[in-house]
Amino acid sequence: MYVGGYGTGGRVLYDNVAPWVAPSDPMNYLIFSTGPVTGTATPIAGRYTVVTKSPMTGFFGDASSGGFWGAELKFSGYDMVVIVGRAPKPTLLVIRDGGAELKSAELYWGMNAREADQAIRSDLGDRAIKVAVIGQAGERLVRYAAIMNDNAERTAARCGVGAVMGSKMLKAVAVRGHGKVHVADPERLNTLAKEITQTVKTNPLCQHFSKVGTAGDFAFLFSLGDTPAYNWSKGDFGGEGDPGVEKLDISKVLVGTRTCYICPYLCRRVVKVNGREVEGPEYEAVAALGSNCGIDDIDVVCKMNDLCNLYGLDVISTGCTLAFAMECYERGIITSEDTDGIDLKFGNAEAAIEMIHRIAKREGFGNVLAEGTRAASMLIGRGSEKYAIHVKGLEIAMHDPRAIQAMGPHYACTPTGGRHTEGLTLGFEIGRLKSDLPLPPIKDRFQTEGKGLLAKIVEDWRAFQNASGWCAFSDRGAYGGQLKFLNVFAAVTGWQLKLNEALLIGERIFNLKKCFNVKHGCPASEDRLPERLLTEKGKAGTVCKLHETLPEYYRVRGWDPKLSKPTKEKLEELGLHDIANDLYQR
Amino acid sequence: MYVGGYGTGGRVLYDNVAPWVAPSDPMNYLIFSTGPVTGTATPIAGRYTVVTKSPMTGFFGDASSGGFWGAELKFSGYDMVVIVGRAPKPTLLVIRDGGAELKSAELYWGMNAREADQAIRSDLGDRAIKVAVIGQAGERLVRYAAIMNDNAERTAARCGVGAVMGSKMLKAVAVRGHGKVHVADPERLNTLAKEITQTVKTNPLCQHFSKVGTAGDFAFLFSLGDTPAYNWSKGDFGGEGDPGVEKLDISKVLVGTRTCYICPYLCRRVVKVNGREVEGPEYEAVAALGSNCGIDDIDVVCKMNDLCNLYGLDVISTGCTLAFAMECYERGIITSEDTDGIDLKFGNAEAAIEMIHRIAKREGFGNVLAEGTRAASMLIGRGSEKYAIHVKGLEIAMHDPRAIQAMGPHYACTPTGGRHTEGLTLGFEIGRLKSDLPLPPIKDRFQTEGKGLLAKIVEDWRAFQNASGWCAFSDRGAYGGQLKFLNVFAAVTGWQLKLNEALLIGERIFNLKKCFNVKHGCPASEDRLPERLLTEKGKAGTVCKLHETLPEYYRVRGWDPKLSKPTKEKLEELGLHDIANDLYQR
Repeated sequence: MYVGGYGTGGRVLYDNVAPWVAPSDPMNYLIFSTGPVTGTATPIAGRYTVVTKSPMTGFFGDASSGGFWGAELKFSGYDMVVIVGRAPKPTLLVIRDGGAELKSAELYWGMNAREADQAIRSDLGDRAIKVAVIGQAGERLVRYAAIMNDNAERTAARCGVGAVMGSKMLKAVAVRGHGKVHVADPERLNTLAKEITQTVKTNPLCQHFSKVGTAGDFAFLFSLGDTPAYNWSKGDFGGEGDPGVEKLDISKVLVGTRTCYICPYLCRRVVKVNGREVEGPEYEAVAALGSNCGIDDIDVVCKMNDLCNLYGLDVISTGCTLAFAMECYERGIITSEDTDGIDLKFGNAEAAIEMIHRIAKREGFGNVLAEGTRAASMLIGRGSEKYAIHVKGLEIAMHDPRAIQAMGPHYACTPTGGRHTEGLTLGFEIGRLKSDLPLPPIKDRFQTEGKGLLAKIVEDWRAFQNASGWCAFSDRGAYGGQLKFLNVFAAVTGWQLKLNEALLIGERIFNLKKCFNVKHGCPASEDRLPERLLTEKGKAGTVCKLHETLPEYYRVRGWDPKLSKPTKEKLEELGLHDIANDLYQR
Repeated sequence: MYVGGYGTGGRVLYDNVAPWVAPSDPMNYLIFSTGPVTGTATPIAGRYTVVTKSPMTGFFGDASSGGFWGAELKFSGYDMVVIVGRAPKPTLLVIRDGGAELKSAELYWGMNAREADQAIRSDLGDRAIKVAVIGQAGERLVRYAAIMNDNAERTAARCGVGAVMGSKMLKAVAVRGHGKVHVADPERLNTLAKEITQTVKTNPLCQHFSKVGTAGDFAFLFSLGDTPAYNWSKGDFGGEGDPGVEKLDISKVLVGTRTCYICPYLCRRVVKVNGREVEGPEYEAVAALGSNCGIDDIDVVCKMNDLCNLYGLDVISTGCTLAFAMECYERGIITSEDTDGIDLKFGNAEAAIEMIHRIAKREGFGNVLAEGTRAASMLIGRGSEKYAIHVKGLEIAMHDPRAIQAMGPHYACTPTGGRHTEGLTLGFEIGRLKSDLPLPPIKDRFQTEGKGLLAKIVEDWRAFQNASGWCAFSDRGAYGGQLKFLNVFAAVTGWQLKLNEALLIGERIFNLKKCFNVKHGCPASEDRLPERLLTEKGKAGTVCKLHETLPEYYRVRGWDPKLSKPTKEKLEELGLHDIANDLYQR
């Protein structure tokens, strides 16, 4: 029914977390969930997903991370870890080969994520144990705090999952296992894995991705008008005294690459910060902390990115909240009296770095920005709401729906707010991603017809793919098309799905998340985009034409357009009979 | 439309606090609201009401308090104070004659409510300024923290309003004014006020109430089976080694009486605790801290009550959460390992007092009980939910619906959970309260027919009465009947209402609160009572027959019984057109 990841985790959340439970309540659930392919020989699948009621949105929240933690959890004998309650004191959960133990984490409380990760491994006498940990931001319930893993280098960042972990006084979950994940057909899986690895080594799209990682596409995406700058206000980035895009080229500072569990890409970048080799920024970080804040210095962005990793902060929400504050400052809505004397202009790198410290420590104006863009704009008032760029309280990811029209209904309607990992249509709209999906004809990224349907199909596929445990980048040519995913899924589970069956599962999972929101009071009016994206042209030359794509989206989704609620018929079609009864009480 | 109090305050809450706002979020509103009769010459009307999204229930919350603070706010020139946001540091709001000023409260943070009240008055150099303040429980977000006023002697206790104040880092609101509240017909009001005062001095029911206060009715109510004992498990209280009711007689320790603003009753009791004259426990406190915890010593109850006042805790929720824990302890669901070694048996006064300290300080097991009965039972698990006596997360007030059948649908359906002040039917069901209300024929308190309608009418009247600013005890004979209330209302406002018009306003306000809950995702399944009250006979010899009264209640309310949602027609009838559009999106 729900496969794994935020599918099975989402069902646990739906069944156990009632509308009256606030995200930071002990009664909220914090769920670490893996998928069936996690920890097997399946390549490009080293993910785990955290599911919880989100402090950013107040509705369904999830975040996913790579590295090795997810696979290690499987080796330890578990598919899923569910945390409920609140410890009286800072606590560490240690899971080793089927056993689970709660220990004091008082020694680690107050440490940054990397210090804590290292101290925990050292104290447990096991350098290879994998640690998922919060930094000081999570401890202080910064609303967009992240969970870090693998020496604070990978992160389940979005939706404020780290703040929920902090509210439970849970500093870290350390996992180690020596078990093996049994699969239905190991031979078939190995054959398929070899094919996939071979494809990555030869396919030009894959090779490009291996070479540049996500951040290496910054200039290309910027040229499409896909990348926001100056709080989504300008397409331009560059000009006198503002040299722009080429100054954000990560290749200039690259010192190495890294991998996640069984992945031939090695898309992770290594850079130096303060003389130390650390994880480099992804594209999202370069855009959010760089161009969107008017900062055009890749060294500064690497430093900001590392700071966010140490404190345990979502880089997208951090950058966008800063960008929002910068625009308020430049417009005189806030002054240096509000910002603790900090000159919070666009492009002021020193100010941005100082403000990240204050956010993580909830000091001064950082205490306002620690609430995220939506809440900060409400606290600031004075018309600042106009410049608050978010959907459902979550800052929008760094892909401009004015440049890719299917992202309009996706951002407006995806249950977790301004997310891209649940249905990024970019590759399909620019013709870069070939697929077996039954997509409508796509002329170009600006056309609006068919984009509601495109968004829906991509979302349904991604839901299946994410819930199974795959990394989203497995789509970038490595598997050739969806049918190979289904073959790998069959080799792992013994269950040979047809594409329409996999899409139905994905649709069920997507609707499950949606139903959580409906139950928790999310109104149709929250299916919106910030006015700026609907009325001010982006660099790509157009506005986001949501009014043209949204009706189609609701229609193909089977959602009542007035209520933004799945119809009873749709829920029955998806086999969600009990949820249909729950939401319709008939 | 909404008169005042939780009517006007409730509308502000409905319009400004979205479903995604958690109670402790800075975006939650904390509203101090008065009514039109507050601060006038109207007798028995010295109330103010606090309105907020409740941390106890997750839905609509309000609490009301007497004393002088409400009248003083009117004298200062304000009807309502709306707090939104979160201060970076402990803060004091001072309102004086039209001016409002935020000051540091760092000196007072950590003080108990009485210390803080006295220190604030002393530091402001104004002994007569009126202070509403939280104790350490509110500072620490104990979920059922109260707001105290008038030297920590009166309290807006229910629904966790003090925790919301604590989440805003607002230690206190001090108010002083020298203005006068203008009324439409001062002469008529004075004449009516004299009549009412005269009635209180001569009417036997009033005289009885003046003489004994609420706590003096303990033995009488206990004899009706109205008073819970041992976590609602036994009707009996007394027997060998458990001498019972007479040991909870407040008259034995009474040393004086006190009044609220313009009130001839003087129903407030004064007792001695640690040699000091303090506010005595009300009936609710004697039952919740006394009989419901198996404690039969009025001195101990006075001490527990005073402790709750100092820490700023709701006595009903405190007592009932303790009683729940005691039953878990006696049943072996929890042991002394859970309770920090405390022998938490029914009747162990020392243990109860120690646990109140721990709750207020969130120490040890107190950190679990600080979450209230519902959350504590979820955290404890092990089947303890069966003994968690609450509705919608709020501990039920000390009137047993097994002894008064109309309280069944009232408790189950009133939007703020287990409340009695929104519609106590006791006086009508035992024939003690005469009224002009169009009540159905009442044979006795055990009959179920007509009790849905009775509950509705009493709720509607109370909503009008509470929103106007009256104390609920104004009903106890002083005004003779509803028509005199309407005459006083007319003298104050210039608006001569007919009884059906006043009831329509009350019904509108009651439905406004209900609509807030519907919008925030409160399902029909939350209109329930604890299984114990439906299946175990109380002292009065019966169970609560909710299945007989609830259908009638829904019918006369005009609420869809499957969804527990006001029909569109009902909302239109009440003039709530915009809310009808909001909830039905048509």
